[in-house]
Amino acid sequence: MRATVLFGAGDVRIENVPDARLIEPTDALVSVTRACICGSDLWPYKTMEHSNTGRRMGHEAIGVVEAVGADVRTLKVGDLVVMPFAYSDGACVFCHEGLHTSCIHGGFFGTDVVAGAQAEAVRVPQADGTLFVLPVGKDDALTPSLLTLSDVMGTGHHAAVAARVGPGKTVAVVGDGAVGLCGVIAARRLGAEQIIILGRHADRIALAREFGATDVVSERGAEAVERVRELTDGFGVHSVLECVGLEQSMRTAVSIARPGGAVGRVGVPQDETLPASLPAFFNNITVSGGPAPVRAYIEELLPDVLEGRIEPGRVFDRVVRLDETPDGYRAMNDRKAIKVMVKL
Amino acid sequence: MRATVLFGAGDVRIENVPDARLIEPTDALVSVTRACICGSDLWPYKTMEHSNTGRRMGHEAIGVVEAVGADVRTLKVGDLVVMPFAYSDGACVFCHEGLHTSCIHGGFFGTDVVAGAQAEAVRVPQADGTLFVLPVGKDDALTPSLLTLSDVMGTGHHAAVAARVGPGKTVAVVGDGAVGLCGVIAARRLGAEQIIILGRHADRIALAREFGATDVVSERGAEAVERVRELTDGFGVHSVLECVGLEQSMRTAVSIARPGGAVGRVGVPQDETLPASLPAFFNNITVSGGPAPVRAYIEELLPDVLEGRIEPGRVFDRVVRLDETPDGYRAMNDRKAIKVMVKL
Repeated sequence: MRATVLFGAGDVRIENVPDARLIEPTDALVSVTRACICGSDLWPYKTMEHSNTGRRMGHEAIGVVEAVGADVRTLKVGDLVVMPFAYSDGACVFCHEGLHTSCIHGGFFGTDVVAGAQAEAVRVPQADGTLFVLPVGKDDALTPSLLTLSDVMGTGHHAAVAARVGPGKTVAVVGDGAVGLCGVIAARRLGAEQIIILGRHADRIALAREFGATDVVSERGAEAVERVRELTDGFGVHSVLECVGLEQSMRTAVSIARPGGAVGRVGVPQDETLPASLPAFFNNITVSGGPAPVRAYIEELLPDVLEGRIEPGRVFDRVVRLDETPDGYRAMNDRKAIKVMVKL
Repeated sequence: MRATVLFGAGDVRIENVPDARLIEPTDALVSVTRACICGSDLWPYKTMEHSNTGRRMGHEAIGVVEAVGADVRTLKVGDLVVMPFAYSDGACVFCHEGLHTSCIHGGFFGTDVVAGAQAEAVRVPQADGTLFVLPVGKDDALTPSLLTLSDVMGTGHHAAVAARVGPGKTVAVVGDGAVGLCGVIAARRLGAEQIIILGRHADRIALAREFGATDVVSERGAEAVERVRELTDGFGVHSVLECVGLEQSMRTAVSIARPGGAVGRVGVPQDETLPASLPAFFNNITVSGGPAPVRAYIEELLPDVLEGRIEPGRVFDRVVRLDETPDGYRAMNDRKAIKVMVKL
């Protein structure tokens, strides 16, 4: 079959690879109908050292169940499913607590253990716990928004939950990528009164405004902090959604949080230490977040997608065929696309 | 009057200083009957550069109101009061949110702005918002426990709240100083099922057990992490109370938190960055805490002290007169005393 393989920085190719197949009795084999390129795919795309074997990319997908292992009980061949970026058994103590990304038998797609989803098909471990059957046809108009439930919409929601967004709260979203934009949707959905987006790309800012952002701060660093304070009576915001993961963005996030506020971080940190620990301490600012248990959030977010109350699928501004996926990487890396959908 | 002045590392003296007096109309003048030496006093005691003028030490006290400014409405001469380590107006938006340590008109005792409480008397700004009138006589047997409401008991409670301790939770307390011991009391009071104290001083550990610690881990670093995991089915604890503030203790705190767990930190951080940011992220561990709004907690904790359900005053294992305060610093610094009370 055809699949996306990253061999090193800037070197992503569509290759012929062995067909995906069932290995464990708890596996499902899914024929991919839609996949995505993720902002987090750009980190290895920018920095990975050359590898002869390469890394099989992709962790977001919608697809059709083609086969199931002997122990799979809730899925049947032909089901249209959405695949969260992490697999999980749905049965362990952490899954029961809603933290599927810490599942004892879980893991992540697009790793050495489980191949990626930017491919014609994908093996899905722990299929009963991982996959969610969608109540629509495979070319439904809602497909783009449903596809975001595999990662970016659930991740933006996780940032908002970790940042304790609620009715009447003031919120800032650091980062105008797809996750940040979904964070705006999540903040509005949870009742935020003021939503400040920090970003500087005109197309993304325009979309953020349509999603519910009330204010835009395009400055950076100390000037951004100053602007957010001006917009919030000098105090900063109750909730900050950190959707980048860089040292500077985290420092900004802590600096614009109001005393007693919270930073929900979902941008994968690029540093071993967290900056601004002292101001966070002296202002009693909570830092929370991590890999989003998007599987846990699908049930909560799905009705809003099905009934059109949220439209996170609008973050996709480019659609490519599988063979064009390398172009999609380039477009996202050059900031010419917010998020790329791969249509198979 | 006589007061404690720190002139540099190891150089603490009792000096004659100008009498404390009312300055602002919102001030009260309090004659100190009990003060304390705090673990946080030991940082400047160990590291302060020589100063000719010195720093007036102390931020925990019980005393008698001697005079009040023209705008003070709720206090009268003769009231016995407990003085939190921070002053606050009780009226601003942050005080209303229960975060008195971020009061817009607030500040801290023992600073350049407001002199310390290891003295015969202390000027208390924002007296109405700051001081809490005690319903006992000035030599009541409960005085030591009431005195801890000025800092260490409220701080241990804050660590527990920030770490989301609740019924049935597993808890670890990093640090066996007075705050850590009060953290044990707080964790038990809030219903924790298992309370692991990390510490190695026999006297403190014995007290921790009396306060409710169920397990003791005396190892350090990786061995301590291993031991805590052994005690918790391999997962770590729901809630960690970080009561030290060093890089190593914070690293341990994150490492022993269970995925989805929380670290409540109240030890004043000695570093600008927070270690172990990556494991905290990947395990969705929340880091919270800061200077405890002890003023907010007095009303909640006081009934338990008055009715003898908690006895945080047992952390005082040495009592000195004001003139002996330098001996008290030495004893605490040499770990010969857990916490020193100054009796005037």
